[in-house]
Amino acid sequence: MMDIADDNGYVLNLKVTKPSLENNTADVERIKQALKDNFKINNIKICFDIIKKIPHILRESNHEIKAVIFRDLAGWILVDIAKEDKDQLFLGVAADIGTTRVVIRIVDLESKQVLIEKGFDNPQITIGPDVLSRIHYAKDQKGLEELSYLLIQGFNSNISDLCKKIDRKAEDIYLFSGAGNTSMTHLFLGVEPSGIIREPYIPCINIPDTLKADKVGLNLNPNAVCFLFPNIGSYFGGDLISGILYCNLNKLEKPCIMVDVGTNAEVVVGCKDWLVACAGAAGPALEGGVSDIGMIAAPGVIDKVSINKDTNKLEFTTIENKTPVGICGSGMIDLAAALFLSKKIDIRGKFIKTNCNGRLFNKYDIDYFIIVDKEDSGTGDNICISQVDLNSLTSSKAAMYTILEVIVCNTAGLSFDDLAKFYVAGTFGSFINPESAISIGMLPDIKRDKFEVLGNSSLGGATKLLIDRAAFDEAGKIRKSITYIELNVNAEFMNMFSGAKFYPHTDKSRFPSVPV
Amino acid sequence: MMDIADDNGYVLNLKVTKPSLENNTADVERIKQALKDNFKINNIKICFDIIKKIPHILRESNHEIKAVIFRDLAGWILVDIAKEDKDQLFLGVAADIGTTRVVIRIVDLESKQVLIEKGFDNPQITIGPDVLSRIHYAKDQKGLEELSYLLIQGFNSNISDLCKKIDRKAEDIYLFSGAGNTSMTHLFLGVEPSGIIREPYIPCINIPDTLKADKVGLNLNPNAVCFLFPNIGSYFGGDLISGILYCNLNKLEKPCIMVDVGTNAEVVVGCKDWLVACAGAAGPALEGGVSDIGMIAAPGVIDKVSINKDTNKLEFTTIENKTPVGICGSGMIDLAAALFLSKKIDIRGKFIKTNCNGRLFNKYDIDYFIIVDKEDSGTGDNICISQVDLNSLTSSKAAMYTILEVIVCNTAGLSFDDLAKFYVAGTFGSFINPESAISIGMLPDIKRDKFEVLGNSSLGGATKLLIDRAAFDEAGKIRKSITYIELNVNAEFMNMFSGAKFYPHTDKSRFPSVPV
Repeated sequence: MMDIADDNGYVLNLKVTKPSLENNTADVERIKQALKDNFKINNIKICFDIIKKIPHILRESNHEIKAVIFRDLAGWILVDIAKEDKDQLFLGVAADIGTTRVVIRIVDLESKQVLIEKGFDNPQITIGPDVLSRIHYAKDQKGLEELSYLLIQGFNSNISDLCKKIDRKAEDIYLFSGAGNTSMTHLFLGVEPSGIIREPYIPCINIPDTLKADKVGLNLNPNAVCFLFPNIGSYFGGDLISGILYCNLNKLEKPCIMVDVGTNAEVVVGCKDWLVACAGAAGPALEGGVSDIGMIAAPGVIDKVSINKDTNKLEFTTIENKTPVGICGSGMIDLAAALFLSKKIDIRGKFIKTNCNGRLFNKYDIDYFIIVDKEDSGTGDNICISQVDLNSLTSSKAAMYTILEVIVCNTAGLSFDDLAKFYVAGTFGSFINPESAISIGMLPDIKRDKFEVLGNSSLGGATKLLIDRAAFDEAGKIRKSITYIELNVNAEFMNMFSGAKFYPHTDKSRFPSVPV
Repeated sequence: MMDIADDNGYVLNLKVTKPSLENNTADVERIKQALKDNFKINNIKICFDIIKKIPHILRESNHEIKAVIFRDLAGWILVDIAKEDKDQLFLGVAADIGTTRVVIRIVDLESKQVLIEKGFDNPQITIGPDVLSRIHYAKDQKGLEELSYLLIQGFNSNISDLCKKIDRKAEDIYLFSGAGNTSMTHLFLGVEPSGIIREPYIPCINIPDTLKADKVGLNLNPNAVCFLFPNIGSYFGGDLISGILYCNLNKLEKPCIMVDVGTNAEVVVGCKDWLVACAGAAGPALEGGVSDIGMIAAPGVIDKVSINKDTNKLEFTTIENKTPVGICGSGMIDLAAALFLSKKIDIRGKFIKTNCNGRLFNKYDIDYFIIVDKEDSGTGDNICISQVDLNSLTSSKAAMYTILEVIVCNTAGLSFDDLAKFYVAGTFGSFINPESAISIGMLPDIKRDKFEVLGNSSLGGATKLLIDRAAFDEAGKIRKSITYIELNVNAEFMNMFSGAKFYPHTDKSRFPSVPV
């Protein structure tokens, strides 16, 4: 998805004119001139620590140097200069700063290759599992500092680990590019987040400027700089801007959609001429956060469910083929689709006892469906899904569909078939089987080849920002060009939502390919 | 000399729009918007430490704040914000960073008044009296750091003293504006100066960007910023750009000249349409640095000399009317004029024994003229001027005149009478009696009312920079618009210099008002 010209990176081979009696410009100004003449980089800002070493490096390198440059809101920055050294690598770190999970990548800024990558749990989880609890904790300065410290130290130790594995040092890292939601951006920076969750929902900052990485506590090269993707508002963060940058939504000829499915569903529709976005609560069922058996992806977690057409029985796979212990969000969607297609649940999502082949039982007036028998389970107990779990999933899938309908049909005035591409972003999204999601009426019934899994698009955009000099301005342009729609949960929305709570929908004609 | 609009300073009263559901821009971006709407200040850079306190200060101040802003090469900077507080003063420090003497001023950035001022010896004198010896000392990093440290600590302790005297704290200081020659600029910043004195005479930096004051070690407000005037080259420094800014040379209708007389004579001629500058060695005699009795201004030093027309005897005054101990540069010029006008020296500057009334004696084949008898002297010895001293002064005055002739007549193509004003800058210049300087042929014989003493114009320009938002760009424009002329000491120059070595000149028609 990335087609970036070779000479468009942030590490430059710079030949500086040598001084003479005819050209007695000062060293610093000769570097500026060389950047202007050779790379059209005007008026670059050179920080004080670099100025101090310029005379030495110019002299020792015969005036042929490596220059690491970057951008801030005011213009270009000279991040560092170095002598030519075949063994040196100039590295960058791209990061997806998730509320639950953080993923980091080390990128070679010259070859533009990803050298190594890893994910780790957001260490703020020890304070609170979700954004709300963390923002409450950050109400006093000490709490805020603690949260920020935990996250930054998480970065420092994991970056250090990765560096060791590729036989490099954290000092080789000159650029850091991070994308997170608005709250994570604040908590990463240690900036007061409480306005985000309190009417009128005002972040402290939407467009963080590039800053020295050591200012936020990152242990990288002493001159390294840190960029965070800008937010649009409290509920539409830099991770989405990054995702749009990654999939080029803002450059496409025909309208496409990018959906990040999770607790919060974030949706952007558009093309080169316009971008419309909204975000809304899709319900935690989709992330496996609510049902008794819901789990995040881990060994033994059921991730795929299907129905054996011959036996009419459920079949499933687990992560790493371990003995089953629970089910994750994508498994839940598969499961609901399988139950619905095999007529074990009705169009309201309620169990049909007669069709469940004795796998249903009732306890305290709640129906439970046994997915895995006690004997085959890794928990020592039956693995079940209850009617309550199912209801929660039904609400979530209905919310998701309604949000899509509002933005695509009501706001953009398109039909779902007008969409040329349906990008599914986010780690969770990568595991969704579109066929299952369509069967339960969570995603619209469009041509299957229009679906494209982006993977971690937030990380992808953060990576692009490190290797393409044009991406900085583009991220700013994307932010400016987005029209953000507040999802008003009004009577009209509730009507649409009610219809979407059926499997696949009250209006069955919308799902012609679903065989029920 | 300063006519600056009241609302053109760097401390602003800023009303920020309060947040609402209709206007849910982030805090930081609302401050930016207010600066844009109310002061046409676009795209201001806000440093990280300030962002962190923005939500609190906005809330506690009911969204009416004080904003201290400044400029760097890329644009505007938000230096700090504060709650309204009647007792707080927002201060700036303007400094003339002289090789020998430093002068600092504390300025109220809102009322634009100078609150207090003092001078102190440049503490680097303990390492070396002149630029050359200091640059040699700075050849290794430790020496450079020591020199920079000495100067910065000198600033810190003297600023702290001044603050105490006006019952303020160094934390009240938000802006620092300094003007020095190119070497002092480097030694202040701790930046490698050795290229300045080595062919091809390349400074490390000509245009220092605004930087955090704590980066150079200044103990001011933690958010304070430091600006140094840009240099043109190794021999034309920021102190002169500052002087031009102060006297508005670049805005005048008719050509004027500004001369800073000292060991180095620095000269700028021009008007609103053009500026031509040069610098050349005028000889240390003018600063009292060479003759046996030469001293810098201090109590007991002879600063004014005249001839009593009735007695034909020398009369003098000393600084603070103390018993005489020596003579300073301006006293030397007076003395030479008095000796010449009373025919005690001839047109070559040699003593005429018969006219010296027995005050001349010879020792080791050198003539000495007794200015003060042993009995009246504070040194216990006669205070004399030797023929060697006089020859040195003759060379200096000839060099000064020749430099003026080269730039005004040969380069700018004017006659001295075309100059509408003759600004004399620098502390030393303030004490020169133009009448005496003309009598010996050091300054041209123009109408006396054209001479204007600027005083410390370098300090004046540094002060203007603190109180006038337009001055930052103007300083840059002045730097760009100056054509710097290398003084080629060629045959033509030597011819002109030879003529100028006579009193007042071989071509007496140039000095019609000198009565000899």
